[in-house]
Amino acid sequence: MRMLVSLLVFMSLSSLAFSDENASSYILPRPLIFETHELKSAAAIYDDDSVNVNCTSWRFAAETNNLAPWKTIPAECAGYVKDYLMGRGYVVDLERVSEEANVYASSFGFSGGDGKDTWIFDIDETLLSNLPYYLEHGCGLEVFDHTKFDKWVEKGVAPAIAPSLKLYEKVKDLGYKVILLTGRRENHRVITIENLINAGFNNWDELILRSLDDDHKTATIFKSEKRDEMVKEGYRIRGNSGDQWSDLLGFAMSQRSFKLPNPMYYIPEVGKTNSYSII
Amino acid sequence: MRMLVSLLVFMSLSSLAFSDENASSYILPRPLIFETHELKSAAAIYDDDSVNVNCTSWRFAAETNNLAPWKTIPAECAGYVKDYLMGRGYVVDLERVSEEANVYASSFGFSGGDGKDTWIFDIDETLLSNLPYYLEHGCGLEVFDHTKFDKWVEKGVAPAIAPSLKLYEKVKDLGYKVILLTGRRENHRVITIENLINAGFNNWDELILRSLDDDHKTATIFKSEKRDEMVKEGYRIRGNSGDQWSDLLGFAMSQRSFKLPNPMYYIPEVGKTNSYSII
Repeated sequence: MRMLVSLLVFMSLSSLAFSDENASSYILPRPLIFETHELKSAAAIYDDDSVNVNCTSWRFAAETNNLAPWKTIPAECAGYVKDYLMGRGYVVDLERVSEEANVYASSFGFSGGDGKDTWIFDIDETLLSNLPYYLEHGCGLEVFDHTKFDKWVEKGVAPAIAPSLKLYEKVKDLGYKVILLTGRRENHRVITIENLINAGFNNWDELILRSLDDDHKTATIFKSEKRDEMVKEGYRIRGNSGDQWSDLLGFAMSQRSFKLPNPMYYIPEVGKTNSYSII
Repeated sequence: MRMLVSLLVFMSLSSLAFSDENASSYILPRPLIFETHELKSAAAIYDDDSVNVNCTSWRFAAETNNLAPWKTIPAECAGYVKDYLMGRGYVVDLERVSEEANVYASSFGFSGGDGKDTWIFDIDETLLSNLPYYLEHGCGLEVFDHTKFDKWVEKGVAPAIAPSLKLYEKVKDLGYKVILLTGRRENHRVITIENLINAGFNNWDELILRSLDDDHKTATIFKSEKRDEMVKEGYRIRGNSGDQWSDLLGFAMSQRSFKLPNPMYYIPEVGKTNSYSII
């Protein structure tokens, strides 16, 4: 499979690891063919296939939230995950979820409406990609390091995920109230706004970051509470886009949720023992 | 990819399409190597890879519930889905979800307890496999036909999904109350019990089928209402195993849900417009 994926690879992110003043370079995916491999022996194909089956299975279990909380990807899947991220797999998945959300968002047919129809977006790995950082840190093979990651965030150069930018603009055009709800902390508000704007995101209605009061809360509780406030103010949460189940589950859930792929890291819900409960 | 999967195929279900009095033959998976393919040209590999990327992406979207309700699998994915089901992919996925559930179920450490800890299992594609039927009907390529499927159900020969039987026995041993909650109708109660017992399932605490009163309800509402009754009786729903999101979402959700793979068919939730709401 690694051979097959490598035959044609449509993305290169290497240049994105560096700060760039040109906003257009902040957008993923950018097509670029950079690698070909010769045919392998049947034995090598079998080895590849065995890893492929196991790692696809691991990814299925991660993406459907079947796994116990995990801190790093399985070592045997390091190449598989990198190939997925750098190959067509990730892009195709991102495009599909954007298109499905687009079709759903367009299905309500309100023109103007009462301004209460709302769409929520997470930021990291949903609107902005930290792939340049993770490519430098094993794509999930290294345990998450807050200090190093914060330094990356503070550069403010995370590129847009292009299919998400497309959806973002669509839901704005359709008249949805757009809320950005992120686990990033308030002290990163300014750089986050700068990064979002440079990456092409504009005119959101609200940007909610984690305040000091929210610091002890799990991602699921923090985000559920914020959604609950919106519901109590009369907003209808029609859609919610996020790469973590902690963006989507809990209470005051959206009418439909869209799970973006993320095989690199996992943000725990409520210790996974009462994460799915109605609280 | 199809070539790679075909190099070694560890399962054959063909014999299971026929009634068999021997209960041991009702258990999946059974190892059997039955096919090899020669190496293909690079062009054929690329074609295969393109289909593989698209169909893996479709499967990811289906399994994470990102898709709009679908009635048949994409025509281009017919071979992919069949290869997945008949190859190692499906078995590995089934084993992983069983093992993850097993670890979680074992984590509570109650010995005896108060008898209120509950595990819910769906039946079709969760405890029992209808793969012999679907192999005869395009593995999702044909639109679902109630009349034909009912005839298959009435044979009562659906085999056990072996990894689920293992989990079933584990949670019983751990002292959980075991509830079978199925969209099958009451008129299939006798044959369902016979099928379950022949396939190796015994001593469940309750088998809940869809009554005439439930007939107009969506799967999500029907199952949520039944879970809600359990919660109101003081039961703690610790785990819920199902192959459909309509088994798992809605209200009175389980503390943890385990999504078994099913790329063959989709049972709609509440029209997908308010399926995720807390009702």
